Amino acid sequence: MEKIVSLCKRRGFIFQSSEIYGGLNGFWDFGPLGVELKRNLKDFWWRRNVRERDDMVGMDGSIIMNRAVWKASGHEETFSDPMVDCKSCKARHRADQLPEKDGTKYCPNCGSRDLTEPRAFNLMFKSYAGPLESDDNLVYLRPETAQAMFVQFRNVLDTSRQKLPFGIAQIGKAFRNEINPRNYIFRSREFEQMEIEYFCRAEDGLALTDYWLEQRLKFYEDIGIPRDKIHVVDIPDGERAFYSKKTYDLEYEFPFGVSELEGIAYRTDYDLSRHIEASGKPLEYHDQEKNEKFVPHVVEPSAGVDRTTLALLCEAFDEETVTDENGKSEVRTVLRFHPRMAPIKVGIFPLLKNKPELVAKAKEVVAKLRPHMAVSYDEAGAIGRRYRRQDEAGTPFCVTVDFDTVGENGPEKADTVTLRHRDSMQQERVSIDELLPRLAAAIL
Amino acid sequence: MEKIVSLCKRRGFIFQSSEIYGGLNGFWDFGPLGVELKRNLKDFWWRRNVRERDDMVGMDGSIIMNRAVWKASGHEETFSDPMVDCKSCKARHRADQLPEKDGTKYCPNCGSRDLTEPRAFNLMFKSYAGPLESDDNLVYLRPETAQAMFVQFRNVLDTSRQKLPFGIAQIGKAFRNEINPRNYIFRSREFEQMEIEYFCRAEDGLALTDYWLEQRLKFYEDIGIPRDKIHVVDIPDGERAFYSKKTYDLEYEFPFGVSELEGIAYRTDYDLSRHIEASGKPLEYHDQEKNEKFVPHVVEPSAGVDRTTLALLCEAFDEETVTDENGKSEVRTVLRFHPRMAPIKVGIFPLLKNKPELVAKAKEVVAKLRPHMAVSYDEAGAIGRRYRRQDEAGTPFCVTVDFDTVGENGPEKADTVTLRHRDSMQQERVSIDELLPRLAAAIL
Repeated sequence: MEKIVSLCKRRGFIFQSSEIYGGLNGFWDFGPLGVELKRNLKDFWWRRNVRERDDMVGMDGSIIMNRAVWKASGHEETFSDPMVDCKSCKARHRADQLPEKDGTKYCPNCGSRDLTEPRAFNLMFKSYAGPLESDDNLVYLRPETAQAMFVQFRNVLDTSRQKLPFGIAQIGKAFRNEINPRNYIFRSREFEQMEIEYFCRAEDGLALTDYWLEQRLKFYEDIGIPRDKIHVVDIPDGERAFYSKKTYDLEYEFPFGVSELEGIAYRTDYDLSRHIEASGKPLEYHDQEKNEKFVPHVVEPSAGVDRTTLALLCEAFDEETVTDENGKSEVRTVLRFHPRMAPIKVGIFPLLKNKPELVAKAKEVVAKLRPHMAVSYDEAGAIGRRYRRQDEAGTPFCVTVDFDTVGENGPEKADTVTLRHRDSMQQERVSIDELLPRLAAAIL
Repeated sequence: MEKIVSLCKRRGFIFQSSEIYGGLNGFWDFGPLGVELKRNLKDFWWRRNVRERDDMVGMDGSIIMNRAVWKASGHEETFSDPMVDCKSCKARHRADQLPEKDGTKYCPNCGSRDLTEPRAFNLMFKSYAGPLESDDNLVYLRPETAQAMFVQFRNVLDTSRQKLPFGIAQIGKAFRNEINPRNYIFRSREFEQMEIEYFCRAEDGLALTDYWLEQRLKFYEDIGIPRDKIHVVDIPDGERAFYSKKTYDLEYEFPFGVSELEGIAYRTDYDLSRHIEASGKPLEYHDQEKNEKFVPHVVEPSAGVDRTTLALLCEAFDEETVTDENGKSEVRTVLRFHPRMAPIKVGIFPLLKNKPELVAKAKEVVAKLRPHMAVSYDEAGAIGRRYRRQDEAGTPFCVTVDFDTVGENGPEKADTVTLRHRDSMQQERVSIDELLPRLAAAIL
């Protein structure tokens, strides 16, 4: 894990938020490579789950919503951890993480045993919308994106011509005031979710939960996380939320332990029913063919953007000993991202930077590919070092423009380039015209 | 404007946030079509400004940052509106918007003239990160994305191998506790920004400000907002921020008046210098060739996602009277989006839904196009009505699969479809194989 964190900082994947001011516990920034990796993940999720499906539509709700949403959802009352205050030094701690000595708990800060009884500490960030800090103006930062999809169920239904079963999908930030943020970007206070609420008839709920499990495992495979690295946990009776009839946790083997990537929960009609009761609005579904009116059930596949990004980094990270043409061996650090996840798709190099015809030709290739994919032009240093730099960034392809390309060794070799593959380090000669279709197919 | 708001609600572009609970003043949700429109805008901005440029890298910073950032930037002290409280009814108002009677100001709520002196009301949303609501834990939701790019300047410089001039680009949410949110999604409390900080040498600052003005006008043209609809205002001396040597406002002719879409500000070395002073960290640039060390200047093109989305809707909205084949005239509502902005790129229809061979063929066409663009399959109702539905959504192309397509009228017409163009309503016959390259080129 240390190596991954260090590579992420060194190559600009992830920085501490506000680092020059000592950071801020539980908050992270994504640098130039990190933001591209995250974009690729979110874009592919959107494509698979929204664009490629007739039965799914997207939405983008606000982070701050009416407080009534969180009263109805139960978050205001129950979304909390048990906390105790130390009466002596005023520090606050999670009750279930207090150290114990001689059978009694004490403050890890000052050692006092004079602690309050555990009280519920709500994990939602509070703020005020409007000029007065009054109860009327109290708002929360959403602790999940899901509720917007329940609250807008009627509007989406009325405007999108969908029929059951169908889903609403959303990607966006959420906030939880975790007492103890930890494991790098795995448990942070500000994070991003990719959530689906898939509405259906009650009788289809269980089967659709299994269907979505399959879909989601397929998704992780398609981004380069193999099925055998994901542990599917069927949460047993008594450990699920009381309204859930079935919940699968999808866990990944992180270096710090097997931990949750995604939850797929069959939430029955709990959420819509709560909002019907609290708002008095008709969120029922009307099946006109069967002339039935009922509250739909819902299956919720809920994934974390930051966690999946971290899993992609962990899965891709590799070090291998390679031998160069002079017989010298060195350690090659390489991120073996799936090409569709890689922040940079292709590095394009002129063999020498002081040969204008090579530089001009390389820039022509750049211009050709750039509207279609993320390209990195690099002319600095030996070709071998440029390959290594791209290996560390996880770039699946490198293209070198040399004297053959510009026709110095005869017309039959003109307009061909060297295409180098990251994982095998194999090189092949391909024509410039072949590049776009070949690379486009590989990264689709 | 009323017509646009009504279309946006009816067709699922924009909803009030938390609508079933009476909404929340200054907060909006994007529905199925709105989220796609906004995605297209943001993706194209990213492509033009990050992916297609060698001198730009992206980042994605957290919304909540260390409070020290906002002390250094000056926001904690000065990012405020003047407010007065009514001593009688306790309501709070913007001092510059109070009504006046007989030369004195009074409370618009209760009529009292017993008002406090104006006081600065900070527009940043406050919250607390950590278990205690203490001064130490006070945080703000960022009122702009820009500061993350200054604060991470060193990290980006160290990891990205960029040399001056170069830029950092970011898209993300920002929050301002506006006393008086207004004009639909134009001035809301939660909004999204697309910002560039373009770092340069002091001597290049003014010329680069003009360069970016040109780039940004070109961008708006490329998304379908013509140059003559944008008013460029060169903010005169004395009206700019004190540190800015040049500021252009780009304003669009909204139905509610000419209003700002984007600001392009040459901010000199103000921001980096403030953070150097406050953090004590070396944010200077070291030019190794010239052996010089200095604080870079910066040009900031800062655009609003929601405002530009609204401009796209206003610019695209049209109603025209058309005559159908029976001589009946009707009003056609059409959103004339640039194809690259359109939420749906192509509608695909089987001529009749009860002919399995037409349905199967239409679904084949869907499967062919879907990995590459947003496709809507529609089999319900007369073809003319399906065209109208797509017109209202702004879909630039429609494809109809008919009996010719499935070879019922001879092999020479087989595998051809009708391609219908939204703006001209012209139809042409094209082969299925031509569709992907033609449409892909049009939406790129």
